[in-house]
Amino acid sequence: MALNKKPATGMKDILPAEMQIRDYVIGVIKDTYGRFGFTSIETPAVENIENLTSRQGGENEKLIFKILKRGEKLDLETARTESDLVDGGLRYDLTVPLVRFYSNNAAQLPSPFKALQMGNVWRAERPQRGRYRQFMQCDIDILGEASNLAEIELILATTTTISRLGFKNFQIRINDRRILKAMAAYAGFAAEDYDSVFITLDKMDKIGRDGVRAELEAAGYASEVCEKYMALFEAVEQADNGVAYLREKLADLLDGEVMDSFTEILDSVEATKADTFELVFDPALVRGMSYYTGPIFEIVMPEFGSSCGGGGRYDGMVEKFTGSSVPACGFSIGFERIVMLLMESGFQVPDRPEKTAFLIEKGVSGQALRDVIARAQEERAKGRQVLVVRMNKNKKFQKEQLTAEGYTEFQEFYKDPLKA
Amino acid sequence: MALNKKPATGMKDILPAEMQIRDYVIGVIKDTYGRFGFTSIETPAVENIENLTSRQGGENEKLIFKILKRGEKLDLETARTESDLVDGGLRYDLTVPLVRFYSNNAAQLPSPFKALQMGNVWRAERPQRGRYRQFMQCDIDILGEASNLAEIELILATTTTISRLGFKNFQIRINDRRILKAMAAYAGFAAEDYDSVFITLDKMDKIGRDGVRAELEAAGYASEVCEKYMALFEAVEQADNGVAYLREKLADLLDGEVMDSFTEILDSVEATKADTFELVFDPALVRGMSYYTGPIFEIVMPEFGSSCGGGGRYDGMVEKFTGSSVPACGFSIGFERIVMLLMESGFQVPDRPEKTAFLIEKGVSGQALRDVIARAQEERAKGRQVLVVRMNKNKKFQKEQLTAEGYTEFQEFYKDPLKA
Repeated sequence: MALNKKPATGMKDILPAEMQIRDYVIGVIKDTYGRFGFTSIETPAVENIENLTSRQGGENEKLIFKILKRGEKLDLETARTESDLVDGGLRYDLTVPLVRFYSNNAAQLPSPFKALQMGNVWRAERPQRGRYRQFMQCDIDILGEASNLAEIELILATTTTISRLGFKNFQIRINDRRILKAMAAYAGFAAEDYDSVFITLDKMDKIGRDGVRAELEAAGYASEVCEKYMALFEAVEQADNGVAYLREKLADLLDGEVMDSFTEILDSVEATKADTFELVFDPALVRGMSYYTGPIFEIVMPEFGSSCGGGGRYDGMVEKFTGSSVPACGFSIGFERIVMLLMESGFQVPDRPEKTAFLIEKGVSGQALRDVIARAQEERAKGRQVLVVRMNKNKKFQKEQLTAEGYTEFQEFYKDPLKA
Repeated sequence: MALNKKPATGMKDILPAEMQIRDYVIGVIKDTYGRFGFTSIETPAVENIENLTSRQGGENEKLIFKILKRGEKLDLETARTESDLVDGGLRYDLTVPLVRFYSNNAAQLPSPFKALQMGNVWRAERPQRGRYRQFMQCDIDILGEASNLAEIELILATTTTISRLGFKNFQIRINDRRILKAMAAYAGFAAEDYDSVFITLDKMDKIGRDGVRAELEAAGYASEVCEKYMALFEAVEQADNGVAYLREKLADLLDGEVMDSFTEILDSVEATKADTFELVFDPALVRGMSYYTGPIFEIVMPEFGSSCGGGGRYDGMVEKFTGSSVPACGFSIGFERIVMLLMESGFQVPDRPEKTAFLIEKGVSGQALRDVIARAQEERAKGRQVLVVRMNKNKKFQKEQLTAEGYTEFQEFYKDPLKA
């Protein structure tokens, strides 16, 4: 039986042209984050299944690729449920593994610890165009820094990186989970309803205030609560300074220090940022993950309708592993979307080395072959790229193909030296 | 319940010090193989289970991490065997995925196609010190090149890379599966016994000729066959030129062209190689995988008892996917072992950037904080590495820690400027 030459459903092969861009983007990311003092770490693709199903991952926990137990541990006879059969799963993000990593290795890590992770994650989503079940994530996180210096540095590092990749006119939208909750409380929603309310609020960009209000009312929330909620969003939008407006309006519901610190993030980034992006307070920004506890942020690119990365503060997660609390904050870049945008724009990797091809006629062997190879080795030792290949019968076509691959110089070697 | 902070059994977290070396090694590998015209590609970690269990992978097929079916496809009620439960698995090497990749994408690839793959593979081996269930492999392969130019280029590219990483005095051992078979035939073994005979022969390094002979006899092979077999190995060892000796001795069993081509590989590499390694014909070299069809090679390092990489020609594998034959040859570097040897030798990554830390006293905020951050951003824009952190109460200890991390310059910022 012939083997199956297609990749596993929803996954993709990466061809040389895309890999070249990916490698370039990875290089820029590592270099830029390095300048901010982030150091690379790596965790295994496989995590213990109990960590992946601990409700840290929200909806992603429904999309786990689970790994069958092996050997004696697998007992098909007595297995009743899925969980009897599996002991691991492929990570669906890099945040849960990072926090496990930190909990496991804190004694050997500096404090604060600034981590850079670039690695694949897996989600068994319904296959659809442009979205794959394996994709690269690129996260920076700061663990052990309670002050807003973490947020400021994360936003500057991320935007500096994206700017170096050539993107302009993008937005960083910022909000705070505590503002989000205080606004819902102000309108009169009950605390246990916040998560459901925020799922609807998250659609603000697409359906607008009227749409959000209609959906909330349809879900059964009191009309006057919904009206008060949307009126507050409208007032913030119309205010000269939305943050200052809310500071006053929510004074009874929200600690003044939260607003001071939030304002300092806005002011510090605004004062030191590049002009490639705009920093925007967006009171309707939700960020899906329930683990966020403070400021949250999102990258929006004009070339791309939806989010192109995001992050926030998640101060409670380390405690779930170790029992003791450690402040934590992270920012993730939408690596795959950035690569896609670069591919679509016809981006060419800068400073590619000059490429030479040595074409060797079939009969060239013995000392003559050794001479050609020695020459190629000399050129390579100087840093040049030299491809050594046999000459095809249709040499013209072969050279056209090589030209398309970026070879600009050709040297031909014949059995009969007079032919050369 | 507290979450589990350990990595999945047999897998490991990679800390910053090791990651720095890994990134350096990856950089040297990509740069060096690039000079030889190899281009990077990537395949998904997950492969269709039927491709992983098609007997291309030998013993590795027993070590697959298998992935549970999802949704409606998973039916615990009717499942009788493991194979009813799974539809994918984590790749155990990069060769099977490469051949699938080539079969799937050949129309978009140059010919010959020179691929570089660096990626993780997974094997559920018994956990043991220094060996992990997830590890990085680094393979180069040439598909579509029938001549020995493939072997010559693969050996030169691999040895050039290893030499650039600072290794000296290593060996490349080389043999040919056809020589291996002809020697067994010459001694009188039946073709169906070759695989079993070669498993014993593979121990030559450890148990010597007498040990191999004893084990073969114990397995029931005729004493005179075993004697003739070992005598042939002894004769090759004592001959001035082992290859020439076998060419004559095995003339009836082995095509002269095989030996001519093999000799040309030896001569070409010998004539153009660096003096960091020795090229050695080893008639007892087996290489476990049954898919090899021609020359096979292995890297042996004095620092390391066993093999540190290997490869060979596997001309039959593409046909299993596409039905049409494509010559193929590859060489894999033992990436994890190389990293381990560098770590153990106290290797320091060259040309690391100078690192500065800005220590900011707790009370510094507002304009003063913005000024510090602006200064850090200026330095980073020049390519310098600047860490911005809050000053700890125990500043002396903090600076010692940072010094240990490689920070050589410190700037301190106080709320009261007179303190600075």
